[in-house]
Amino acid sequence: MSDPFFHPVSGFDLPRFAGVATFMRLPHVGLDDPRIGEVEIGLIGAPWDGGTTNRPGPRHGPRQLRDLSTMIRAGNGATGIRPFELVNCADLGDVPPNPADLMDSLERMSSFYARVKQKGIVPLTAGGDHLCSLPILRGIAADAPVGMIHFDSHTDLFDSYFNGSRFTHGTPFRRAVEEGLLDPKRVVQIGIRGTSYDTEDLDFAKSVGIRLIRIEEFFDRGIADVMAEAHEIAGGKPTYVSYDIDFVDPAFAPGTGTPEVGGPNSFQALQVVRELAGVDIIGADLVEVSPPFDASGGTAWLGISIMFELLCVLATSVKARNPA
Amino acid sequence: MSDPFFHPVSGFDLPRFAGVATFMRLPHVGLDDPRIGEVEIGLIGAPWDGGTTNRPGPRHGPRQLRDLSTMIRAGNGATGIRPFELVNCADLGDVPPNPADLMDSLERMSSFYARVKQKGIVPLTAGGDHLCSLPILRGIAADAPVGMIHFDSHTDLFDSYFNGSRFTHGTPFRRAVEEGLLDPKRVVQIGIRGTSYDTEDLDFAKSVGIRLIRIEEFFDRGIADVMAEAHEIAGGKPTYVSYDIDFVDPAFAPGTGTPEVGGPNSFQALQVVRELAGVDIIGADLVEVSPPFDASGGTAWLGISIMFELLCVLATSVKARNPA
Amino acid sequence: MSDPFFHPVSGFDLPRFAGVATFMRLPHVGLDDPRIGEVEIGLIGAPWDGGTTNRPGPRHGPRQLRDLSTMIRAGNGATGIRPFELVNCADLGDVPPNPADLMDSLERMSSFYARVKQKGIVPLTAGGDHLCSLPILRGIAADAPVGMIHFDSHTDLFDSYFNGSRFTHGTPFRRAVEEGLLDPKRVVQIGIRGTSYDTEDLDFAKSVGIRLIRIEEFFDRGIADVMAEAHEIAGGKPTYVSYDIDFVDPAFAPGTGTPEVGGPNSFQALQVVRELAGVDIIGADLVEVSPPFDASGGTAWLGISIMFELLCVLATSVKARNPA
Amino acid sequence: MSDPFFHPVSGFDLPRFAGVATFMRLPHVGLDDPRIGEVEIGLIGAPWDGGTTNRPGPRHGPRQLRDLSTMIRAGNGATGIRPFELVNCADLGDVPPNPADLMDSLERMSSFYARVKQKGIVPLTAGGDHLCSLPILRGIAADAPVGMIHFDSHTDLFDSYFNGSRFTHGTPFRRAVEEGLLDPKRVVQIGIRGTSYDTEDLDFAKSVGIRLIRIEEFFDRGIADVMAEAHEIAGGKPTYVSYDIDFVDPAFAPGTGTPEVGGPNSFQALQVVRELAGVDIIGADLVEVSPPFDASGGTAWLGISIMFELLCVLATSVKARNPA
Amino acid sequence: MSDPFFHPVSGFDLPRFAGVATFMRLPHVGLDDPRIGEVEIGLIGAPWDGGTTNRPGPRHGPRQLRDLSTMIRAGNGATGIRPFELVNCADLGDVPPNPADLMDSLERMSSFYARVKQKGIVPLTAGGDHLCSLPILRGIAADAPVGMIHFDSHTDLFDSYFNGSRFTHGTPFRRAVEEGLLDPKRVVQIGIRGTSYDTEDLDFAKSVGIRLIRIEEFFDRGIADVMAEAHEIAGGKPTYVSYDIDFVDPAFAPGTGTPEVGGPNSFQALQVVRELAGVDIIGADLVEVSPPFDASGGTAWLGISIMFELLCVLATSVKARNPA
Amino acid sequence: MSDPFFHPVSGFDLPRFAGVATFMRLPHVGLDDPRIGEVEIGLIGAPWDGGTTNRPGPRHGPRQLRDLSTMIRAGNGATGIRPFELVNCADLGDVPPNPADLMDSLERMSSFYARVKQKGIVPLTAGGDHLCSLPILRGIAADAPVGMIHFDSHTDLFDSYFNGSRFTHGTPFRRAVEEGLLDPKRVVQIGIRGTSYDTEDLDFAKSVGIRLIRIEEFFDRGIADVMAEAHEIAGGKPTYVSYDIDFVDPAFAPGTGTPEVGGPNSFQALQVVRELAGVDIIGADLVEVSPPFDASGGTAWLGISIMFELLCVLATSVKARNPA
Repeated sequence: MSDPFFHPVSGFDLPRFAGVATFMRLPHVGLDDPRIGEVEIGLIGAPWDGGTTNRPGPRHGPRQLRDLSTMIRAGNGATGIRPFELVNCADLGDVPPNPADLMDSLERMSSFYARVKQKGIVPLTAGGDHLCSLPILRGIAADAPVGMIHFDSHTDLFDSYFNGSRFTHGTPFRRAVEEGLLDPKRVVQIGIRGTSYDTEDLDFAKSVGIRLIRIEEFFDRGIADVMAEAHEIAGGKPTYVSYDIDFVDPAFAPGTGTPEVGGPNSFQALQVVRELAGVDIIGADLVEVSPPFDASGGTAWLGISIMFELLCVLATSVKARNPA
Repeated sequence: MSDPFFHPVSGFDLPRFAGVATFMRLPHVGLDDPRIGEVEIGLIGAPWDGGTTNRPGPRHGPRQLRDLSTMIRAGNGATGIRPFELVNCADLGDVPPNPADLMDSLERMSSFYARVKQKGIVPLTAGGDHLCSLPILRGIAADAPVGMIHFDSHTDLFDSYFNGSRFTHGTPFRRAVEEGLLDPKRVVQIGIRGTSYDTEDLDFAKSVGIRLIRIEEFFDRGIADVMAEAHEIAGGKPTYVSYDIDFVDPAFAPGTGTPEVGGPNSFQALQVVRELAGVDIIGADLVEVSPPFDASGGTAWLGISIMFELLCVLATSVKARNPA
Repeated sequence: MSDPFFHPVSGFDLPRFAGVATFMRLPHVGLDDPRIGEVEIGLIGAPWDGGTTNRPGPRHGPRQLRDLSTMIRAGNGATGIRPFELVNCADLGDVPPNPADLMDSLERMSSFYARVKQKGIVPLTAGGDHLCSLPILRGIAADAPVGMIHFDSHTDLFDSYFNGSRFTHGTPFRRAVEEGLLDPKRVVQIGIRGTSYDTEDLDFAKSVGIRLIRIEEFFDRGIADVMAEAHEIAGGKPTYVSYDIDFVDPAFAPGTGTPEVGGPNSFQALQVVRELAGVDIIGADLVEVSPPFDASGGTAWLGISIMFELLCVLATSVKARNPA
Repeated sequence: MSDPFFHPVSGFDLPRFAGVATFMRLPHVGLDDPRIGEVEIGLIGAPWDGGTTNRPGPRHGPRQLRDLSTMIRAGNGATGIRPFELVNCADLGDVPPNPADLMDSLERMSSFYARVKQKGIVPLTAGGDHLCSLPILRGIAADAPVGMIHFDSHTDLFDSYFNGSRFTHGTPFRRAVEEGLLDPKRVVQIGIRGTSYDTEDLDFAKSVGIRLIRIEEFFDRGIADVMAEAHEIAGGKPTYVSYDIDFVDPAFAPGTGTPEVGGPNSFQALQVVRELAGVDIIGADLVEVSPPFDASGGTAWLGISIMFELLCVLATSVKARNPA
Repeated sequence: MSDPFFHPVSGFDLPRFAGVATFMRLPHVGLDDPRIGEVEIGLIGAPWDGGTTNRPGPRHGPRQLRDLSTMIRAGNGATGIRPFELVNCADLGDVPPNPADLMDSLERMSSFYARVKQKGIVPLTAGGDHLCSLPILRGIAADAPVGMIHFDSHTDLFDSYFNGSRFTHGTPFRRAVEEGLLDPKRVVQIGIRGTSYDTEDLDFAKSVGIRLIRIEEFFDRGIADVMAEAHEIAGGKPTYVSYDIDFVDPAFAPGTGTPEVGGPNSFQALQVVRELAGVDIIGADLVEVSPPFDASGGTAWLGISIMFELLCVLATSVKARNPA
Repeated sequence: MSDPFFHPVSGFDLPRFAGVATFMRLPHVGLDDPRIGEVEIGLIGAPWDGGTTNRPGPRHGPRQLRDLSTMIRAGNGATGIRPFELVNCADLGDVPPNPADLMDSLERMSSFYARVKQKGIVPLTAGGDHLCSLPILRGIAADAPVGMIHFDSHTDLFDSYFNGSRFTHGTPFRRAVEEGLLDPKRVVQIGIRGTSYDTEDLDFAKSVGIRLIRIEEFFDRGIADVMAEAHEIAGGKPTYVSYDIDFVDPAFAPGTGTPEVGGPNSFQALQVVRELAGVDIIGADLVEVSPPFDASGGTAWLGISIMFELLCVLATSVKARNPA
């Protein structure tokens, strides 16, 4: 049972629109806070979009996700999981990027996540653009490559942009494979669709053994079948979960920089996460929520609802590893 | 056949964007109007959101629903029903709330609906928040408890808010059961989902015999099967229909105060109403449309489309009772 | 293989948010341009909404569609088609309407399209309201009636508006049948739904042999079955494709003047076009995108994604006719 | 003293967000209503924008102006005028245009206003685009030319559009002078600014004696001085007041089709109307409010605030003519 | 010199869009925090709008004001004041209202402010609607009546609403005078304008000696002269400052429930606060910012800029009283 | 007299909402176009915001400015200047940035502008963030330092960001002075306001002789007086004009990343440019228009209106230098 210090503020004590907005109304416990040692899952903001090649904005994501997250309550109605009671959760604040320097930002982020790992905290990150996943993996998977279940409409496996820029939100997982952070045989990408320049990313995936499941296959086979395969690919070993909000159809998630029409609806968006139950998850992120393109806040609301589902399977996973 | 006085203004006489906006371009007939005695179905606005515990706004619902309602035409393409020809319909105007006094507002509303019932008019209400359903039931179900088919993502069966406030939009049906307005054995709630504080509402439902159909069950079984069960529960006796717009997925209905992702789409939102054909409906409402969160008007357009479907089954039901 | 002059600007040479916005970043080649003779498919804007009887705005459609179209890349991930390599494509600019004179606009448009046809260019048009389809057909189907596969929530087969106005966006295909531009036996209308004044349009359809597939039938039978019937109706002969964005559910396409809830999602919106493969298409349009009602640009993004799918099947069709 | 029947609904009886929205919460009294003979000032909607050559939308103006008008109270804090007590005011509804036929719409409107005049009612119109002022003048100034005080950023004195279209929102006052509806020597145009094609309109103004006051002169001299000159030009004889919302700076009134930056602020927008006190006003309009470009409703709120100021001077003027 | 613990996070350490949003990036120090005793000025959110009679929304004000406040830097460029160096400032969090119970909310708020006063902290409050000022005054002015400088377009001096509701955002200062919290002779209200029901509020003001300065007088005399009179009225004795955002013209502050056109611009909005230098200020508030009507966040940005100006004069005032 | 090839498309030939959107409807003439040698003033887009430290978005500026620019007509009503007749103007397209590499982007931009200068073309640039001004100056002022008249709410004279990043939109003019591109004695910055971290920028300005005119001084002295001083500072020698849209009050220009309230209105925004007549201008820019924060397009409309005023004084200046 978790420590009450780490329980969210209840809407019966303070209405949900009130109060300083932390993730899911959890206590704000920075890396230097005296109680940081008790935290088991850390919700972290990565407010950086320096890897964006098209429409910027995800740097504003963590702020808006925190705002909407105050409408999340304590229990998961569908699965019955009550994550805040299972493990100690806290809002660790934002990792500080340098918006004027891409390489410095990558360095700041990987250092931050290395410290998080060192403290034994499992990170659940709110992006930020998808390049953020690279320094996170550098921070938490430096010892040994991990598997990855990746929900997205894009593979993010390109080699470079403008013939030379190797660090953009289209390249993180190419780099992660090259750097030995990901075991490509244990990587599955789900939801791929949209137009493309060429097949360079697909060729790379094939060459290293990454499994791609296009959206047509996803709809044809159904969620249960697809996710069963994902479990097999993850193989019962440490696995990272990366969720790009543009996996979801833009009618449900308009607030993102590179939307692709023809995606899953919001029920399916939650279901794929619920089907992660049993995977050995060592960290997760939800990226590419872009408030400037999300006037109504609906994308952030869906985004934080997905994060809550991620938290539920993450808490179960953490509890399974530390059953005490 | 209805009296032509009660027919909507045609778009061929006055374009749909023109004219003073009444519900579906019907004549405005107040409770003191000389022709009120001829009205069979009254469309009523309940512009009040004093029961809102989170994001207010539904007080503006009736105005925006009237605006969008001018795009509704005379016939239902799917079912062939032409409600305005079946029975005399009119816009009765808005019930006047007191925004500065919750208990006074409840009283004003129940008195208004008691008068509506006394005149033999079946009410179709546009809310307002969901607390409005309580004074409506007080007005029309004071004599004997009625059944209810309830579409919503929340049960609205909580006991109190802030440990003491018993009248909020989370409590109307708890009160209605306690006050003998609803027969809990003849109540079904469809579409329940989202996070929760605890299971107090579910426990109450179970204890009094209210049937809950969560969204997962709804999607698994399909509309036809679920609605067949709803017919059984209603049991051929007088039944109220309460439709919270947050039943629908927020991509289709963003303009509401407590959205829950993972809901039905707009086709399903209409289908569940069409499947009410044959139920003995004695009144209906569509609540929680919140224009400040609906910049595009899309929620109101869906809301009024649902109200038109409700009107079609209501008109058929009224006609069945008064076949003359 | 197409001429590189007609290839789109790559996002690796100029970021997708940069540059003067032409359709899909193609060269702008006007009807008097020296290279017009090489163009095989012309993307044309028809910025006119003089036929609108309700909410205007589609005159702004081509501008916004061009803007969003810069996010389209070279290849179709689902079908593998790379249209710009198959045939020479260009942006022919906008046909100039006279916003103050409906009949003059019709004349200007039909003349423009007659010139397009004369030059052997297959037109893919971005509307504009649906009345634009009439002068397009006058321009390209003057010699012999063509078939039509028509996606829409409305039939657009009405006779007149306000008892006398014969040219509105509710009448184009009634006129086209009367004028011998369409062979009604080879016309199918898919997706019809919403409320209606009367059955005048349905009666006309039945009397001339136009096939209507309502949305309920569409969902019941599924896309593959419905589109197989569409192929049969088209009959392997020259066929026009007209796509009203209000075919799609307004949650996916809010930016239109006469939305009808309960329509297909965006995946289905693309699928129906992909299923056109093999039809002998001699022109196509995507109409009724209305930027003033599309604050987020999401409708235009879906619209241009549909246009890209149309371009893919159109390019295949053109290539099939001119295999050189 | 006016008849209480013609008094607005009070916010203390029905909150301002409630009720069917008529202009300023006045009774809706159509031209065929039994009490029409008692009306002294009629508020009329002219929901038509067929004269628009650029961005359409003002056809939606009357609906939105009515909505916002429910926030107007009974008395003018600045001048002390209480118009609803001075004279009988009513909402006459909307004049029905034919959106598919410009000439038919002009005819419908002039007939309507001729009836209004015949009944002795002074019209205060909410447009619609500026072409609406022409049929209004045809209806009320057919007997003898009137003077006009005209607030606008454009002269609307052009001869034709597209070399031939003589009826657009850029031409109404050219036509009105030609048709003998306006006495050009008694016309003053205030606030003119923005870019221009040529000086055709200025040449015409000079040739017939219309006085133009550009915005630079307006700011240099100040409101009191400019309006004193306007009084002189009106000359104590029957004068029409036409107010284009684009007179005001677009920061205050973004919701219009042809905004020109560098205009008056909202205080000045009201002051010029207050300075009309003493002019013999025989009708007035407020045109070009375009809701699709006014997401926040701020333009309509300013527009209706201006209309209330117009009503105050109009009521005083009517009372002065009928002191009984 | 203030303690560095109470300095805002610098934008050079953490970009302004990053981090958990507290007021002006100050530390969050609750009333039970160990360091609360060191706080000299407390920034407090009052997220409650139960007194709203028209358009609700200010309950969301504190959250959005905190968000925008992260763009405030350390020094006032115009006056040179650096408030965070003068005195210890902190974000005290939000006072918890009960959205379902008006009287309970008033009680909760007055208790909270009584504790604030007891700790010797000067409160700077972000509303909330204007009724919030009443419990604040009950909390901090219970001992002796204070003076007030009040910027607003409304007097908020009405007696009751709906003939009986005595606690709304139109009545707080009537109640405060009656309860002996305000010394009416030392109250000045600046910026009054807009339409009115009657003169009940003006009559009350006159009867008790409150000085009203309408907007016309404000513009005529100029800020320096008006504010000099305000100083005289405050009389060098303890004075509260209440600033309703609707004092400012709605082009600058659209996000509020009861806007009145014709108000000051944003430069004047700041200037009036700067002219408070030298007044003995014992507390201040900025109320009626309503995010649902402020899509762009511009109102909150102006609101927090005004709060920073208030903080500067407040800090100077506190420093003057405690020169240590 | 200019060549008709370089005249804008008239709204009488093609309505203003139609056609591919180039700057002010000018011909698109790239640097490699055969007619580039005839161009005298080149309108250029700089779609890059890599220097943004707060809210990104100006990379989308050129696209939206082109869109709105189609509403600009041929002549300046206030000054009578008709720039397109004075000199040959063209849209040179966008300079291609590398969004993933700041230093590469700077290099690409300075090379582009060096080519522009080499061809004898005077550039009028639409940003992009303010860092864009640095590579522009590198391209056109490499030979000898120029003077600058700079409208802005910020000095952009900071040394570095995050203690090390020397190239951000807060540093361009510090760098330009250091690199000998600007003669600080001939630089004036007008409109400075807002909060500040420290006085580092002011100290630098003082040390090198840059003249700062804060907004309070600007309002006190008036435009004519301030601009007379600007003329003196420019000293009749080659001068660059840099205009940050955040010079203007955010009510008039909300669409920008770092707004500061309390600025000039739109009339003043134009007037300061008109008062540049007679300055020897060798290039100009309008930067920091950020479409994601400009939902209504109003900022872009003001921005392009300012650019037209800049074009008028630029064309006069060019003509004065090349009187041919």
